[in-house]
Amino acid sequence: MSLAQFNLAIEEIRADRARGASELARRALERLAEAARTLPAGDAIELRERLLALAAGLSAARPSMTPIRNLLRRWQEGWPAPAEPDLAVARRLAAERAEALIVASRRAVTECAAHAARRLGSGRTVMTHSFSSTVVEACRLLKDKGLRMIVTESRPLKEGQQLAERLSAWNVPAIYITDAQMGLFVARADAVLVGADSVLADGAVVNKAGTYLLALAACDRGIPFYVCCESFKWRAVAESAPELEEMAPAELDAPDQPGVTVRNVYFDCTPARLVSGWIDENGMRRPETRP
Amino acid sequence: MSLAQFNLAIEEIRADRARGASELARRALERLAEAARTLPAGDAIELRERLLALAAGLSAARPSMTPIRNLLRRWQEGWPAPAEPDLAVARRLAAERAEALIVASRRAVTECAAHAARRLGSGRTVMTHSFSSTVVEACRLLKDKGLRMIVTESRPLKEGQQLAERLSAWNVPAIYITDAQMGLFVARADAVLVGADSVLADGAVVNKAGTYLLALAACDRGIPFYVCCESFKWRAVAESAPELEEMAPAELDAPDQPGVTVRNVYFDCTPARLVSGWIDENGMRRPETRP
Repeated sequence: MSLAQFNLAIEEIRADRARGASELARRALERLAEAARTLPAGDAIELRERLLALAAGLSAARPSMTPIRNLLRRWQEGWPAPAEPDLAVARRLAAERAEALIVASRRAVTECAAHAARRLGSGRTVMTHSFSSTVVEACRLLKDKGLRMIVTESRPLKEGQQLAERLSAWNVPAIYITDAQMGLFVARADAVLVGADSVLADGAVVNKAGTYLLALAACDRGIPFYVCCESFKWRAVAESAPELEEMAPAELDAPDQPGVTVRNVYFDCTPARLVSGWIDENGMRRPETRP
Repeated sequence: MSLAQFNLAIEEIRADRARGASELARRALERLAEAARTLPAGDAIELRERLLALAAGLSAARPSMTPIRNLLRRWQEGWPAPAEPDLAVARRLAAERAEALIVASRRAVTECAAHAARRLGSGRTVMTHSFSSTVVEACRLLKDKGLRMIVTESRPLKEGQQLAERLSAWNVPAIYITDAQMGLFVARADAVLVGADSVLADGAVVNKAGTYLLALAACDRGIPFYVCCESFKWRAVAESAPELEEMAPAELDAPDQPGVTVRNVYFDCTPARLVSGWIDENGMRRPETRP
């Protein structure tokens, strides 16, 4: 893998609208493992320097998505001692470290979804927003247990359609609505379950734009609002809120008119006070027990 | 005008997605005036019976839109005494009565918008949802007074695009966003101003789906949320909430999938507790002074 190829991989992650934060974090680790094995380097020290620079580039590609940064930081912390002089050994250890983290991330998502499914239980109507792979996994676990879903379109790219397709294939009955109808339908749900791109240390949740509105409506109607995401998505106390990424205005498909500025901010931030519980691979934390 | 033509006019009103409640109410009155002048009838009593049946049909065509019902009821109350025996006189009086109500409705909207514009004042950033002709008139009055607007797409038919077009023609700077971004942008507004299709006696507001979410977000962020509509939109104390009309699922343009039910409810109901003030042709009522 050349540096140019690696930069291309960073650009792919930056432009990816289909994958959520967990998947993109694993993709970043895959690229890093590949780079560790094949990026040209004269010795172990040069390899380390170049990989660290690449990891920084990957982290910066999607600032709203904390797991990319957290997993790459974890990878970096596990770098073999600088004393490791052998280039081939350093390459192998760096790549294996990245691969181990991919496995850990995948396991965390699976366990998180299992906790969410247990929390929801059988025969429930669950509402969600956007497309979260953790929520999808929870749906898969509940698909033969009387689950019914309420799914939002999720403008601009309508990832709700993918979710509806998945549910249809599993014979899970689903209601599909515009984002604007969230307030009308939330009262029909037993619970709301959303994923997250990042969770701040105080429990505020960065997720697809519209999540804050759904949380407000759920709170107003007395419907529990659960966030399920692996702990790699939590930010440390000292960390500030991530930038809320903005994508191309063209995705809204609005006519170009003088004086009209089309905005396409992808994420919003739901205050912790609207969250009934955070579900991760260790189980659920209620507001009173959050860190 | 034959009965068949009149029934076609009712169908047109039922299918109309472009016009708001005020405009459709005036259109209903126009049709009624036309029918009063030209509908075949043997005598004044037969004319009255036929027109009342048609008025009932017009009222039922758009149950979420109270002004249609209120204006037609007002028209009916002003029907010349049953003693009026002359068919030609009855035709003229009935038509003139409808036309006078059209003028009254138009004046009420204009005065309502003038009150809204005064309330907002110069140099403000105002957020709205959907397309309300009263809000548009308020924007026209403020267009040279430093108004800036935040406009939502308003799925499914995106009437926000029409509003953005109008604002662009008036050189009013506008930010155009998806409905899902309402929670992100409301904090940038000095106030929210929306129209209404109906207002319940307790002050709850029936308006385009998504209005309730915007009201929740405005309330959460401490931004005043004003509803501007003429008093013809208010329902009486004894009247129940109107049906929330549902339109064709095809408007969402979602793929047809087994087990997935596409819902397209056009209106939602915002509780009075989220409204900072109701502006009609008589001025503004604050929550503490509402009827």
